Amino acid sequence: MTSTPIAPVDPKVLREVLDGRWAHVRRDARENLDDPDFLPVYGESMTEARERVTRAAKKLAESGRVVLGFPKEYGGQDDSGGSVTSIEMVAFNDLSIMVKTGVQWGLFGGALQLLGTKRHHDQYLRDVMSFDIPGCFAMTETGHGSDVQQLRTTCTYDPATQTFDLHTPHQAARKDYIGNAAKDGRMAVVFAQLVTQGTNHGVHAWLVPIRDEQGNPMPGVTIEDDGPKAGLLGVDNGRLTFDHVSVPRDMLLDRYGQVAEDGTYTSSIENETRRFFTMLGTLVRGRVSVGGSAGSATKLALDIAARYGEVRRQFAAPGEEREIVINDYLVHQRKLLPALAKTYALHFAQGELVSTMHDVQTAVHVHGQEIDEHAQRELESRAAGLKVAQTAHATQTIQMCREACGGAGYLQENRLPHLKADTDVFTTFEGDNTVLLQLVAKGLLTGYRDNFGSLDGWGRVGFVADMVRETVLERTAARGLIARLVDAVPGTDEVPMLERGWQLKMFEFREKHSLEGAIRRLRKNSTTEGMAPFDMFNDVQDHVLKAAQTHIERIVLESFVAGVDRTEDPAAQRLLDTLCDLYALSTIEADKAWFLEHGQLTPARAKLLTATVNQLLRELRPHLVTLVDGFAIPDAWKAAAILEEEAGRQEAMAARDAELRAQNGEATPNDTATDLDVPPGQ
Amino acid sequence: MTSTPIAPVDPKVLREVLDGRWAHVRRDARENLDDPDFLPVYGESMTEARERVTRAAKKLAESGRVVLGFPKEYGGQDDSGGSVTSIEMVAFNDLSIMVKTGVQWGLFGGALQLLGTKRHHDQYLRDVMSFDIPGCFAMTETGHGSDVQQLRTTCTYDPATQTFDLHTPHQAARKDYIGNAAKDGRMAVVFAQLVTQGTNHGVHAWLVPIRDEQGNPMPGVTIEDDGPKAGLLGVDNGRLTFDHVSVPRDMLLDRYGQVAEDGTYTSSIENETRRFFTMLGTLVRGRVSVGGSAGSATKLALDIAARYGEVRRQFAAPGEEREIVINDYLVHQRKLLPALAKTYALHFAQGELVSTMHDVQTAVHVHGQEIDEHAQRELESRAAGLKVAQTAHATQTIQMCREACGGAGYLQENRLPHLKADTDVFTTFEGDNTVLLQLVAKGLLTGYRDNFGSLDGWGRVGFVADMVRETVLERTAARGLIARLVDAVPGTDEVPMLERGWQLKMFEFREKHSLEGAIRRLRKNSTTEGMAPFDMFNDVQDHVLKAAQTHIERIVLESFVAGVDRTEDPAAQRLLDTLCDLYALSTIEADKAWFLEHGQLTPARAKLLTATVNQLLRELRPHLVTLVDGFAIPDAWKAAAILEEEAGRQEAMAARDAELRAQNGEATPNDTATDLDVPPGQ
Repeated sequence: MTSTPIAPVDPKVLREVLDGRWAHVRRDARENLDDPDFLPVYGESMTEARERVTRAAKKLAESGRVVLGFPKEYGGQDDSGGSVTSIEMVAFNDLSIMVKTGVQWGLFGGALQLLGTKRHHDQYLRDVMSFDIPGCFAMTETGHGSDVQQLRTTCTYDPATQTFDLHTPHQAARKDYIGNAAKDGRMAVVFAQLVTQGTNHGVHAWLVPIRDEQGNPMPGVTIEDDGPKAGLLGVDNGRLTFDHVSVPRDMLLDRYGQVAEDGTYTSSIENETRRFFTMLGTLVRGRVSVGGSAGSATKLALDIAARYGEVRRQFAAPGEEREIVINDYLVHQRKLLPALAKTYALHFAQGELVSTMHDVQTAVHVHGQEIDEHAQRELESRAAGLKVAQTAHATQTIQMCREACGGAGYLQENRLPHLKADTDVFTTFEGDNTVLLQLVAKGLLTGYRDNFGSLDGWGRVGFVADMVRETVLERTAARGLIARLVDAVPGTDEVPMLERGWQLKMFEFREKHSLEGAIRRLRKNSTTEGMAPFDMFNDVQDHVLKAAQTHIERIVLESFVAGVDRTEDPAAQRLLDTLCDLYALSTIEADKAWFLEHGQLTPARAKLLTATVNQLLRELRPHLVTLVDGFAIPDAWKAAAILEEEAGRQEAMAARDAELRAQNGEATPNDTATDLDVPPGQ
Repeated sequence: MTSTPIAPVDPKVLREVLDGRWAHVRRDARENLDDPDFLPVYGESMTEARERVTRAAKKLAESGRVVLGFPKEYGGQDDSGGSVTSIEMVAFNDLSIMVKTGVQWGLFGGALQLLGTKRHHDQYLRDVMSFDIPGCFAMTETGHGSDVQQLRTTCTYDPATQTFDLHTPHQAARKDYIGNAAKDGRMAVVFAQLVTQGTNHGVHAWLVPIRDEQGNPMPGVTIEDDGPKAGLLGVDNGRLTFDHVSVPRDMLLDRYGQVAEDGTYTSSIENETRRFFTMLGTLVRGRVSVGGSAGSATKLALDIAARYGEVRRQFAAPGEEREIVINDYLVHQRKLLPALAKTYALHFAQGELVSTMHDVQTAVHVHGQEIDEHAQRELESRAAGLKVAQTAHATQTIQMCREACGGAGYLQENRLPHLKADTDVFTTFEGDNTVLLQLVAKGLLTGYRDNFGSLDGWGRVGFVADMVRETVLERTAARGLIARLVDAVPGTDEVPMLERGWQLKMFEFREKHSLEGAIRRLRKNSTTEGMAPFDMFNDVQDHVLKAAQTHIERIVLESFVAGVDRTEDPAAQRLLDTLCDLYALSTIEADKAWFLEHGQLTPARAKLLTATVNQLLRELRPHLVTLVDGFAIPDAWKAAAILEEEAGRQEAMAARDAELRAQNGEATPNDTATDLDVPPGQ
């Protein structure tokens, strides 16, 4: 299993491979995104954090760095992919700023841009872009987060006054967790049930002033503060309650649904559910940004932990004077390296996603083409799936990095506590991860046919009737290469595990089998006499989510394979190829039971798998720091005291220990252990 | 697989079963531990938190509730088990108070009591107990946490002045993360290398004044603030640096090692390593307290998430008007119930541990008996293992509960952010979990023979020579019962999975096999030509830790089985029995790959296992709230706004929805979905 060692790689080469299509946006951020207000401040009060983050948002607006996604005619660049890449770079700084940015220019500004029409753009877009109108995206209610279609806020049209009556019917319908609401927001895009002429046309959005010029709440608007959160102290989340607030007719963001003076409702999309999900679908950027930002936080955490593990020493080896660097311990490598491999994998997958999103959105919103429904559904599913994968990976990995840095990892000055606390809500907002996994599953089960990206519990949709007859996996990246690799695998059990084709085949088999099994069970339940509709679904929920999970992992592997293939530098390609092996095999290892259960691994092969992963760790160990160097995170952004101090401290300790030994003769602690046995065989 | 439903159980009966040997301590806390200063305050600054926690510590001292472990002659109760149970109850309140309590009376006071002698007790113990002398436990250094034997601080005796010279040789040797240091501490128990007459006798402890009456640092003592941490804001952690501080001879805590006026060193324990670990071994209470407190935080998080899941509704079922309570979803049950089962299991294991600790410590420290080395080693190993299990479970479970509460779980007012951030360091302090697992493994490999609870990387100890020839698992609780259950299992594959004997057998087989495999590989490596001593161990590190992990899980299962057996009420016994099934089977399921790999599960049985776990979830679902009620956490301690609001909010929403439906006719959102298909078969 041993092979020639992997040659050293210049991290700059890795950086170029990782930087991809929006390299210029990344480069610009690394060179120019540099202000103390952008860095987290440790021990700040909530008030201080909020003030600093508001200042930072203004500075970002002035820099022009956050408005790339807006139309050129209003001063933007019509660059959807650039806008989310830009947020991904902001996320290496204080994550409160990333979220504030996402709220103002992604969600609030994005909704105004994509759900509004020219009169809204002309009147408001420049002030939104400049942060002169700070705004909120008021969708979630205390009682309804994931299930947006069930929002309880109503907005009822009255032809007599030509205004809408925006109303919160009860406490559970108040808008909650709304960023920019508690302190800064002057306007809000408010989502509510549109009722006119006695008919509810489903959820629409209005632009609603919530504070006057003096910062006082508008009449009928009650604003509460969500108070301190686990993290993101600089984001002013709050609650909005509307007591029969009068909203002029032209404040309806009416691209997808219009109300005439007399109250007649019109829309180019007749089916209400389809209309609703078309509107939501335009807002996919939010989810893509959260996934990318989770990736940035994960990279930073790994950067800190990998560098610390390179200088931190604990326990001396027999016969050695200095203690062992903790990155040399197998179980430490088992923590850091598979997480690092997955971070690379997700980075490549994110790159593919941003690129697809850019192309789909540019076609519709810049070139005015018709929406390609299938492409749009697939994009939404991919965005949901990667958001789940990236945020769950961030939560796990940052936690692991915190623990890998011991007590130092618990001090705010070493950044990891902020990274953990700030990203913690990423698994929840922009769609709860469990609910998003269901969305992914639904897309798979129905072949993206007319399921409108619905997040519901399936019960309301005729999912069984819609389910695909035949599950055909569509390859997503480097299709030709992947087909060749898979086809080249012989049909025997004894294929070497480092063969990429075998790895791909395992991922594909697992996904197809999980999906088919879920479909079989759902069909069976649907014909089971006496089974309640909810139970038909609920009985299989774990299986269905498993299918979604395996789908995401396959797509991520394909992206990594494509990324390795694109790498031109031979040394870098060799390193990334080995890292890709580690991603593939550690993912299979984590789900080894499934492969054993389904006859894809024999017990002997399962043991070989563990040995192979350990061998990959040994091969990659010397390149651990190079791999985090590849992320090219500027030192000025890291804000972790241990990175500055630890190396120097270790050298000082070694020097003084030697001195001490000279002074005290035999009396140094290391020597006291020599009264104990040495293992035989030496 | 269906059986008669489990009958309702009175939570009071569960509480009695759980309360166990120190029920009176728990009862007293529930009835009397009641002060606003004891509850977390959300949005507090670090300064405010520290001040409140100092006040709380004084009040706790006055209540007499935290000094149970001290000798009767000084006002304590000689009740070691009571003292850790008391801390476990304090931990339901603000965890900063628990840690402050643990530092003052557990670590600082405990070291004074157990390492000091009568003159120290007479002079200081009452003031320590009353908090008139707040103190520190200054062991960890910036450069050495887990590896205490390698501490670099020196304390060198000078017969001319009859004083010790306490000195920090370099920055990495400063005492770090020391609780009570940054603000309150007047004295510290400082651990350092004792050097006299040119010889280093290893780590000892001294009682050292660090601040004068006015609160200023003593001459030569530099005190720094560790600043804000991820959590535990109310604990004033700091750094202590000693610049040739003069310490009078009689301040050496000299129970285990004495220095005469002329500098002659004496000790009743000749072997330095044995002496060191005997000293450390007396301090086992700290680890036991951390494990118990992690358990309390876990229970509280589960209490909040389970109650919230019982009223929170999302997504309507077909044909139903109201949405589904999230506890009814299978994947929600898969999150909450196995975690709850494990929490019960760990509670019983903690009960056994505290009881054993009490008996071992009472024999030595109250009745003056000789230390039973084997019992002491086993106790330390058990304490280490359970600390790992409890704290890792807390980190996972509290995170899961936070996510299970969605956005609400991210608000400080709902308690979960504090629980997560405060307990996060529990996996690190009082011994890093990975290092502690190694300690457990070492005990197993050597049969607790002379390994002194060493935390080192094995290199220095002749562990291969010491390794046991035959691995015999010693059952730890309800031995007779467990033997009967295991012996009753027939030797076929097709034993029902709900048979307790089969479950126990699986746990035992896995442990024995893992341990024997690790030993085989270590022996093989030790005779492999050219293998560096460090690599001999490092190559097997993951396998060795796995053996430790399986050992802990077996002990925990045995404790749960014993707990069920002790339960007299038949309904409660039935419920706990089923919960114990869930603990056993979900633990086996989590490691299914191992059982498949080692021929203990066929693929068909592995699938049956998943189905059986799901069936157990269905059976236990109706008792979810009863099970958290069994923890008997007083409402006043919970400090979670959602518990107060959510139920009322849901009722209000249902009522207003009905009203709205009446007003709007067909125009309510729920009905809009009826244009979609209903699954066939209805």
